[in-house]
Amino acid sequence: MNRASLIKHIFEKKSYLCIGLDPDLNLLPGSLGKSPKDLLEFNKRIIDCTKDYCVSYKPNLAFYESLGSSGWKILEETLAYIPSSHFVIADAKRGDIGNTSGKYASAIFDYHKADAVTVAPYMGSDSIIPFYEYPDKWVVILGLTSNPGSKDFQFLTLESGEKLYQKVISEAKNWGNEANTMFVVGATHPNELAEIRKIIPNHFILIPGVGAQGGDLKEISAFGLTKEAGLLVNVGRSIIYASKGNDFEEAAAKEAEKIHDEMKTYLSMYTFS
Amino acid sequence: MNRASLIKHIFEKKSYLCIGLDPDLNLLPGSLGKSPKDLLEFNKRIIDCTKDYCVSYKPNLAFYESLGSSGWKILEETLAYIPSSHFVIADAKRGDIGNTSGKYASAIFDYHKADAVTVAPYMGSDSIIPFYEYPDKWVVILGLTSNPGSKDFQFLTLESGEKLYQKVISEAKNWGNEANTMFVVGATHPNELAEIRKIIPNHFILIPGVGAQGGDLKEISAFGLTKEAGLLVNVGRSIIYASKGNDFEEAAAKEAEKIHDEMKTYLSMYTFS
Repeated sequence: MNRASLIKHIFEKKSYLCIGLDPDLNLLPGSLGKSPKDLLEFNKRIIDCTKDYCVSYKPNLAFYESLGSSGWKILEETLAYIPSSHFVIADAKRGDIGNTSGKYASAIFDYHKADAVTVAPYMGSDSIIPFYEYPDKWVVILGLTSNPGSKDFQFLTLESGEKLYQKVISEAKNWGNEANTMFVVGATHPNELAEIRKIIPNHFILIPGVGAQGGDLKEISAFGLTKEAGLLVNVGRSIIYASKGNDFEEAAAKEAEKIHDEMKTYLSMYTFS
Repeated sequence: MNRASLIKHIFEKKSYLCIGLDPDLNLLPGSLGKSPKDLLEFNKRIIDCTKDYCVSYKPNLAFYESLGSSGWKILEETLAYIPSSHFVIADAKRGDIGNTSGKYASAIFDYHKADAVTVAPYMGSDSIIPFYEYPDKWVVILGLTSNPGSKDFQFLTLESGEKLYQKVISEAKNWGNEANTMFVVGATHPNELAEIRKIIPNHFILIPGVGAQGGDLKEISAFGLTKEAGLLVNVGRSIIYASKGNDFEEAAAKEAEKIHDEMKTYLSMYTFS
């Protein structure tokens, strides 16, 4: 999906919500069982009950990999089930030497046909460049992550005075362009988000960490939204596990709708300046 | 496999060779076809003809992922085929928030039953800690990688005067211990390897980049070997694709044997001081 279509979807739907499809066999709600088939059923029902409120889905590959080859089959069937109107981010955090990254890119884009993939920057430009060889596909580079461990290295100060995450973002923005590159910035770092917007005023930013991880949607919307939206905010567990009972679809829909309602407000407040 | 067993294997066999099982459908030699089944056959024949010369195999998951769920089946069957005497490294370069890294750890250790997994450090300690919850399993952390892009961030100088890769290694060595942690240091950085040995005098180091990437085995052995060996040197393409013809097994065996012969010499030269 290209940038113009993504922006159009966001403004038509008045939503920049991405839903994390990270299903865990041990947490399937209601009367669902504990087999891989139940997990697929769960995904389909979550998609059905939330698709009107979001513009994107983000399956994290770890949850499928942990089930072996049958998990990969479920990932394939889940991806096939997502409506083509929705932007699909394969959350994989891949990155390897160029030759090998090319294989990961092929897995995500040729095989799974996702719109975007998350990648880790530690190995540098040639580990990411192979992902750029697919037209209208997106590379989502880890900038400043939402987890406590982001403090270990990402906040290190370089001799230039920059923080490592600032350097990563300002270098990596040159690997692609605004039409094929996004950055991950965790909702748990709102002040840094405001300042990252100065480095990348127009790039899309994918924001995890709202909900279970504690990020504040209003704050990150105020700091992150641009006149072309420029944000996708991922919410996972607090939607898909909104209820442990048989009413999980109703509860997930209600939670997604609540966020959607907030987003409508923020889009009109913060995107017209 | 625990540290004592790994060291014992290395000295009994006089080899610290790890072979990269990174098969590419487009490069299968001889009369092999281009189906996933042929790829499994290739792996089995490579294992058969090289197992006497190496102590470890390292499948890179990208090559299997690019074939979708059928690729994962081949990975499973390949792993099942590797003799239990050999140390298996799942080269995955994973890393995510703690909850999610736990799923990756389960994929690699519960499901695939590998001995070790490679991980990327950018997201910090809590992205790696879940991999440590498996006794006798190993976490192999990217320190200084072999690819040109290693210069983009890993060599950045911090305000403390350290390089980023030095900081990563000196921090991350505290996440685990010498019995469950290795670091990746590319063969293309021999001088840095010598200096990294001062930060981690006893840890095992996994060295890619010999062969196709141009690293020199003698040099990295001189700088990296310790009295308990402390090295696994990975060679991939120059062994598995030693010949494009039907003699590929003979050629792979010959190449592995040549490296094994060199390693015998270096083990006696550099491990008794």
